[in-house]
Amino acid sequence: MNRNVIITCALTGAGETPGRSEHVPVTPEQIAAAGIEAARAGAAIVHVHVRDPETAKGSREVGLYREAVDLIRAADVDVVINTTAGMGGDLMLDPSEPTTFVEGTDLVNGVERLAHVEELLPDICTLDCGSLNFGDGSLVYVSTPDILRDGAKRIQELGVRVEMEIFDTGHLWFAKELVSEGLIDSPAMFQLCMGVPYGMPADPQLLATIVNQLPPEAVWASFALGPMQLPWVAQSILLGGHVRVGLEDNLYLRRGVKATNADLVTAARTIIETMGAKVATADEAREILALSSRTTR
Amino acid sequence: MNRNVIITCALTGAGETPGRSEHVPVTPEQIAAAGIEAARAGAAIVHVHVRDPETAKGSREVGLYREAVDLIRAADVDVVINTTAGMGGDLMLDPSEPTTFVEGTDLVNGVERLAHVEELLPDICTLDCGSLNFGDGSLVYVSTPDILRDGAKRIQELGVRVEMEIFDTGHLWFAKELVSEGLIDSPAMFQLCMGVPYGMPADPQLLATIVNQLPPEAVWASFALGPMQLPWVAQSILLGGHVRVGLEDNLYLRRGVKATNADLVTAARTIIETMGAKVATADEAREILALSSRTTR
Amino acid sequence: MNRNVIITCALTGAGETPGRSEHVPVTPEQIAAAGIEAARAGAAIVHVHVRDPETAKGSREVGLYREAVDLIRAADVDVVINTTAGMGGDLMLDPSEPTTFVEGTDLVNGVERLAHVEELLPDICTLDCGSLNFGDGSLVYVSTPDILRDGAKRIQELGVRVEMEIFDTGHLWFAKELVSEGLIDSPAMFQLCMGVPYGMPADPQLLATIVNQLPPEAVWASFALGPMQLPWVAQSILLGGHVRVGLEDNLYLRRGVKATNADLVTAARTIIETMGAKVATADEAREILALSSRTTR
Amino acid sequence: MNRNVIITCALTGAGETPGRSEHVPVTPEQIAAAGIEAARAGAAIVHVHVRDPETAKGSREVGLYREAVDLIRAADVDVVINTTAGMGGDLMLDPSEPTTFVEGTDLVNGVERLAHVEELLPDICTLDCGSLNFGDGSLVYVSTPDILRDGAKRIQELGVRVEMEIFDTGHLWFAKELVSEGLIDSPAMFQLCMGVPYGMPADPQLLATIVNQLPPEAVWASFALGPMQLPWVAQSILLGGHVRVGLEDNLYLRRGVKATNADLVTAARTIIETMGAKVATADEAREILALSSRTTR
Repeated sequence: MNRNVIITCALTGAGETPGRSEHVPVTPEQIAAAGIEAARAGAAIVHVHVRDPETAKGSREVGLYREAVDLIRAADVDVVINTTAGMGGDLMLDPSEPTTFVEGTDLVNGVERLAHVEELLPDICTLDCGSLNFGDGSLVYVSTPDILRDGAKRIQELGVRVEMEIFDTGHLWFAKELVSEGLIDSPAMFQLCMGVPYGMPADPQLLATIVNQLPPEAVWASFALGPMQLPWVAQSILLGGHVRVGLEDNLYLRRGVKATNADLVTAARTIIETMGAKVATADEAREILALSSRTTR
Repeated sequence: MNRNVIITCALTGAGETPGRSEHVPVTPEQIAAAGIEAARAGAAIVHVHVRDPETAKGSREVGLYREAVDLIRAADVDVVINTTAGMGGDLMLDPSEPTTFVEGTDLVNGVERLAHVEELLPDICTLDCGSLNFGDGSLVYVSTPDILRDGAKRIQELGVRVEMEIFDTGHLWFAKELVSEGLIDSPAMFQLCMGVPYGMPADPQLLATIVNQLPPEAVWASFALGPMQLPWVAQSILLGGHVRVGLEDNLYLRRGVKATNADLVTAARTIIETMGAKVATADEAREILALSSRTTR
Repeated sequence: MNRNVIITCALTGAGETPGRSEHVPVTPEQIAAAGIEAARAGAAIVHVHVRDPETAKGSREVGLYREAVDLIRAADVDVVINTTAGMGGDLMLDPSEPTTFVEGTDLVNGVERLAHVEELLPDICTLDCGSLNFGDGSLVYVSTPDILRDGAKRIQELGVRVEMEIFDTGHLWFAKELVSEGLIDSPAMFQLCMGVPYGMPADPQLLATIVNQLPPEAVWASFALGPMQLPWVAQSILLGGHVRVGLEDNLYLRRGVKATNADLVTAARTIIETMGAKVATADEAREILALSSRTTR
Repeated sequence: MNRNVIITCALTGAGETPGRSEHVPVTPEQIAAAGIEAARAGAAIVHVHVRDPETAKGSREVGLYREAVDLIRAADVDVVINTTAGMGGDLMLDPSEPTTFVEGTDLVNGVERLAHVEELLPDICTLDCGSLNFGDGSLVYVSTPDILRDGAKRIQELGVRVEMEIFDTGHLWFAKELVSEGLIDSPAMFQLCMGVPYGMPADPQLLATIVNQLPPEAVWASFALGPMQLPWVAQSILLGGHVRVGLEDNLYLRRGVKATNADLVTAARTIIETMGAKVATADEAREILALSSRTTR
């Protein structure tokens, strides 16, 4: 069991959630405020997406990232910044003519996905380690080995740590290839994403199985989408991992009760502490992940 | 443990294997001959792809399927015919400009993938239940929920049984959706494909885990790519499943010794029988899979 | 995941714990008071051992059971009563002459182990489904198939429900034999006891494995000894089970902080509710376990 | 997967099998002859029990061991000798008065169990790492931590390698204690015994689970009782282990066909080689197990 647990709070994501909960932060100010509150509640890491303030849709706009990240860095709370680099892999097909891309497509190469990372140099950025269907319909998330190797190389050159997001067991296979090719510094950091349709289901036995497949000395966390988010905090630490909660993945504190990001962090902290473990500080997270110390860059 | 084991022989596939072994059948005559030999050696089902006789590359040409299937049906050996319907899902990207499709792309809709199935009405055809990266490089296999539902409906209308091919755990999740939506007749038939980069690795504990996720009354088989093909025969039956061998997935009988399809069927039979199980006949396979009886159509 | 969770509180056990925590109840009055507090805190079931008030050692004395059980039944709180029937199986050997039994031996037949059950007719009593070493040294817990069948028959005749305690995988195998021989009424009730040296270790993957071995329609709970007690509350409900906490199995609320029984029930409730599940009432527990309704006998 | 597989042949055991198959060797000459044939068929190790030639029951008589072992050592075939040291742990209770030991009891201390080991200095002897019920009825196999520590110390002093036999998960827990206490030389050698009522059932997922619990650098084998013996050869090597077959554990080559020890070794060899692995020689087994080289002592 993990007894010193890093909580990552995934503040907003890119999903169609702002219409479903008033707590989902949309503007850079809202996102930064949510991150600061989450950090105060116990999150050692905030995972940052940004949204277009007009449409509330997910965005890759560097200016929006800068605004959000600068506000968090300027706050009087210490937190590790993890930005997504998973945007720019969306391929929306017309199923009757699948070589025709339709609205919703946002597909760029591995380096273009990193524009904000190059500019802002967060402590960590994500790398989504494979392609898969995303939800019902015809959206394919596309990240090929070529694209991923280009991305990994560039992120490492920037001195930013890679968090490899794993949506299914084949992604883990490829992620281990990246590690064995020397494209990922040690300790390799894995985020095991469960319950995202149609990736790995949130099945405890499956998590145990893939944890057994991780390379030695890996640092890993796991989360589950939707109502399994808080139970999965317990499952992850029982199997030795860190945890992630937040409105990107789940809107509810419990059935019928909408949550803020800080509410979800507090609930995770309650589970962790009642189970007899402790919540890691930002500095402890830096040590576990071999990050450089806090900078204001 | 499964004590009455259906052997499927996957005769040729669509991979770049003809240059690597002289035993890989290429022309319809060769494919049919390989299927007939495999059936004589103990395969109850042959899984048929066809290849362009000029280039040896995989093909969706109906005429080629007709030739191969007619020859097998005309033979004096009883075997169940399973044709692929997985062709037509290949998207080859330029990784630096990923919305540009390059050579190697063959991407059509769910119904177009079935032209040969409509024409030849095999007993079974496959349905590859999701998208994933195929190998290193930038080939994405694309099969979205929309495409898959269209395909499943059409196959069922034709009275052909669907074999759901599962390359990763998210594919199984979606396949179970197809079953619960009533798009797949009972007993649902699953082929668990292990060791295909970058799908599920050939890990015994992973197979046990996903077998536990199958719906009750599922009929399932499993295979592993490459040198794990013959060991996986044992693993599948130990966990209650049927098996698949053949040159589509593996070229060697043992290290350094190239195999024919019939050699691999014979080796599978040896493992099965030495473990104390028996090999199912074509008629027993029809009963297990609730197929209609042999026809010459 | 189990969303309506029965908490059993195991109040005192028979271990050498009274000298290690002042909260371990010893006299019947203390045991009853602890049970009543635990019920108020959320335990639907109390698991009752008694101790000799002079020596604080575990006892099979019917009068002590009567006193404790009567006090709990008379209280103004509703709780299901589960008494141990596991006492009377202790064989302490001289390791240099192992046919010589030494102090600490208390070994009687299957029916004698039930004297207090016959007298008090609790809702439930336990049946420890096999023999194993208990701890380091030379104490063997002895419960053979003959003894267990005699016990199961007698308990069923009394109209008391059997909770089959499972200390290792072979015990589960035999318990399933009892079920298939018709010696256990439906729904069969299993308590999976983890972390008792030298029975099953408290390993999440092992719990998942043995849960897969349970017969369909089993109702089960699981607990872990020592510092894994509270984490195991989460693990059990994640895999679909009920839970057990209490001073029989663990003395600490967290490192360095000694607990009361009610403290441990409250902590379990916190974990359960924060994970989004609810705590079952005594009446809900009766329904889940198909017990007859509350009586004061 | 294990690609260089040690086959142990367990020649006769101590069970009531001589009346059930004419192939079970009884006299020292028969046991030695069976061992020599098994070695010729591919067994690198023979596991030796002896039987009273008059009654055919299992025996601890040193003279019988000497006769059998000397004959095997004198043969012109190279094989590693592993004698049981598991005899002398049988406690047969009267279930109605369980402190009364009845016929069938043969319970001695840890050092007395080793008389033949001291005399004959086999390469390996077994140590059964816990107590459990053996079969239906009232036979308890008794091996307490005290007895086991005494045995382990003496065996190590003799320069004989310990094979720790594991009948359930709690035995593995204790065996790991022996290793961590320095009572077992490296590499620790485990025999995972499945399907012995009422020990661990022969469940592939359970084997995967306990293999994950083994200490790093353990060398392990596994076998299953009865009709799962030959399938378990495949399961063990798939999970990285060595194998054991022989008439001690199973009398049949296949349903209705009684086997000799050599038949079972040959069948194991067929499975191993058809799966693409090789069978280790006696010298390779010595190297894997860090045994000293062949002696005739």
